[in-house]
Parts: sequence; structure tokens; C-alpha cells
Amino acid sequence: MVKSVNVIGRGRAGTAIAARLEERGVELRAEGAELTLLCVPDTAIREVAQRLSPGQGWIGHVSGATPLSALDPHERRFSLHPLQTFTRVRGPEQLDGAWAAVTAETDEARGQALELARTLGLEPFELDDADRPLYHAGAAMASTFLVTLHEAAASLVAAAGAPPEALEPLMRRTMENGFEPTGPIVRGDWATLEAHREAIRRERPDLEALYDALAEATVR
Amino acid sequence: MVKSVNVIGRGRAGTAIAARLEERGVELRAEGAELTLLCVPDTAIREVAQRLSPGQGWIGHVSGATPLSALDPHERRFSLHPLQTFTRVRGPEQLDGAWAAVTAETDEARGQALELARTLGLEPFELDDADRPLYHAGAAMASTFLVTLHEAAASLVAAAGAPPEALEPLMRRTMENGFEPTGPIVRGDWATLEAHREAIRRERPDLEALYDALAEATVR
Repeated sequence: MVKSVNVIGRGRAGTAIAARLEERGVELRAEGAELTLLCVPDTAIREVAQRLSPGQGWIGHVSGATPLSALDPHERRFSLHPLQTFTRVRGPEQLDGAWAAVTAETDEARGQALELARTLGLEPFELDDADRPLYHAGAAMASTFLVTLHEAAASLVAAAGAPPEALEPLMRRTMENGFEPTGPIVRGDWATLEAHREAIRRERPDLEALYDALAEATVR
Repeated sequence: MVKSVNVIGRGRAGTAIAARLEERGVELRAEGAELTLLCVPDTAIREVAQRLSPGQGWIGHVSGATPLSALDPHERRFSLHPLQTFTRVRGPEQLDGAWAAVTAETDEARGQALELARTLGLEPFELDDADRPLYHAGAAMASTFLVTLHEAAASLVAAAGAPPEALEPLMRRTMENGFEPTGPIVRGDWATLEAHREAIRRERPDLEALYDALAEATVR
């Protein structure tokens, strides 16, 4: 197990990761750590990596879409992306049960990344460097766009005078049922689909394009 | 409490509703019931209602988008739409914790519908007849389109060689965190957004329109 880590960046992810490392007895230190873990925004990774002098051990980043080359000129490097959304009101237990994408160029680097994943309590899987943007687009769809979908649905329900919180048991159960598709489109009930469209066009025309794109993807 | 119900239609919803009524000691009978509850597909409600002779007590439907006029010529009528997705592998407990939209034209009808909701274990709220399509569009977004979103996200993750089941802890936590938005768009990281778009355009061009519609709604 890695004995000392320099966690750079204490945003949502960095805070949870640093707390978990401390919890597991890993020393957090700014100088001379075995591993420097960049938990900074994606756009800052390249610059921060360039400022660090190589030869101080391993370096890693926790970004989903960023290639390993962003860690140039460092060669003892890897990426470990926890596939989770973090909030500041929870602690290191946020990592429990989450998966993590590991990208590495050598067996040694892969070993380091997998060991770190285990220390953090993450379930690792390997991901090719070239596949990171596609993978991360899927992750963003599942998380950011889930928020977007909920907002859009809640705003329609509220516009109809119904309580938007009523959607939550529905959304939870949809997941619990293994995403089994139900509803008018699944039943081939095009009249109801058209009634939805008319109501959206009249009351929330700004959501028409989103409804149509989702309906079309569902039909396909 | 209603003492006898004729549940017509034993699809996913009708099966759960009938099982819950029996569980609560309500007699299920085909003739002379106090309430006839149409749990048939939306497209069949009008025809089934017309075939039933009026004056046999109350009539209701459990559709989300269908207006009360579909129950013509019956006048002692209401609608109660359980805001839940049902599966045949679960029982009446599927109703627990779910909300229900109640539409009625008279106080007496409203009283009947609210009493039925309580008997079924549903949390009722009132919904104007004219608002049903808008409300139901929101419900379909939250459930059918959640399935669509998950399928799209899982297919991107799988195309990147990663395990699609890794998305589930992420989606669950996104909900548990009260749909708090995170991710590149929230951080204003347009370079990552463009990297997603390029990867989708190259590998899954069929999902480009959906990604763009969701990204645009998120930015707004």
C-alpha cells in the first residue's frame, strides 16, 4: 500500500479522497510523497503537472476525460477516475460501492493505480487512454444529464400544478426495476405521445426539442 | 372505505392494484361493484366505458394523460393515476410510497378518489383535467426517458470498453444527492464537452442529437 500521498486540490473529489486516505492510515504530505495525486479541475491538470519536478515518485490524476499526456513530462504516471458524483456534505464513504476507471501505460503503473483504487475502496476497471472521452461522455449522460432530465420533468409537473417531489419514488423505482421500460411509447400509444407534445409546445416550448430528442431515441 | 371494486384490466398496474385491494379486504367482483376501475390501456378506456351501462355506481380510470371525458357517458366518475412504474415480478407493495394524481369534477367524486388512494396506500394530490397531458409528459420524462438516458449512457460506456453496470452507483447517488448538478458543464469546462462531442460523433453518431439536446438544456 502507498504510504504517503500529496493530494493537490480539495474540491469535491479531492476532499473525499484525502479523507479516505487519512482514514486508511496513509500520510498526507506536500513534499516527498510517494504519489502526487492531482484532484484539480481538468483544465488545470496540464499546468500543475508541468510545475512539478519529475523524479519525485508517482503522479496521477482523477479526471474522467483527460489523457495521460496531460501529465507530461512525468513518465511514472496513471489516471484513476472515481465514477461517482461527490458532495461536500458527505465524507469518504462516498467512495464506497463506486467503480473507478484506471488508465496506465505500464504494468508497474497499472499496479500502482489498482492498489490506490483498493485503498480508496473503489472497484477498478481498466480503460484505454483513447477511450476516455467516450467513456466520460457516458458518465456525464448518467449524472449531469440525469439532473437535467429531472429538472425538465419536475418543471413540467410543477407547471401542471402537481408536486414535483412526487417524481422521486417513480425515478427510484425505475432504477430499482433495472431500467425496465414502461409508458406510452413502450405501449406504442402515439396519441398520448402527441398529447404530451401539444401540451409542451403550448406551456413549455423551450423543452420541446429535448422531449423530441428523447422520444426519438426511445422509439429507436 | 369502498367495499367492492370491479377491476377491469390486469396489466402491470391493474395487477398490483387488484392485489392491494384484496389485501385490504375489498371484494373484487365483476358485477354490481360499488366502483368499476378501468386499468386497461389508455387507447381502450373510451370504448370500455361506453360498453358499461351507467348507474352501476362509480367509475374511474388510472391513466395519466386521459381526460375524464373518456369515461362518457358516466357521470359519477374520477381518475386516479398512480405515479409509479410497475413490474409483474413485484406485488402490491409497489404502491407504497408512490404519489397519485386525482382528478374529479365534484366534491363527492373527489372524496371517492381520495378514499381509494388511501386504501391503495398512495399519497394523493389533485390535478386539473386540462393539466393531465402536461403532468403526464413530466412523468414520462422521469421514467421512460430515464430508461432511455441510461441505455444511451450504458452504450457509450460499453463502447469505451468499460462495464456499463459501473453507472448504477453513480446514478443512484446523483438522486440521493438531491440531483445536485456536477460535471464538466457545471464547471464551465467546454473543452471536455467538445471532447465528448467528438468522441460521440466518431463512435456513436446516432447519439449526437440526444447529447446535444441534453447539453443545451443543461447549459440553459
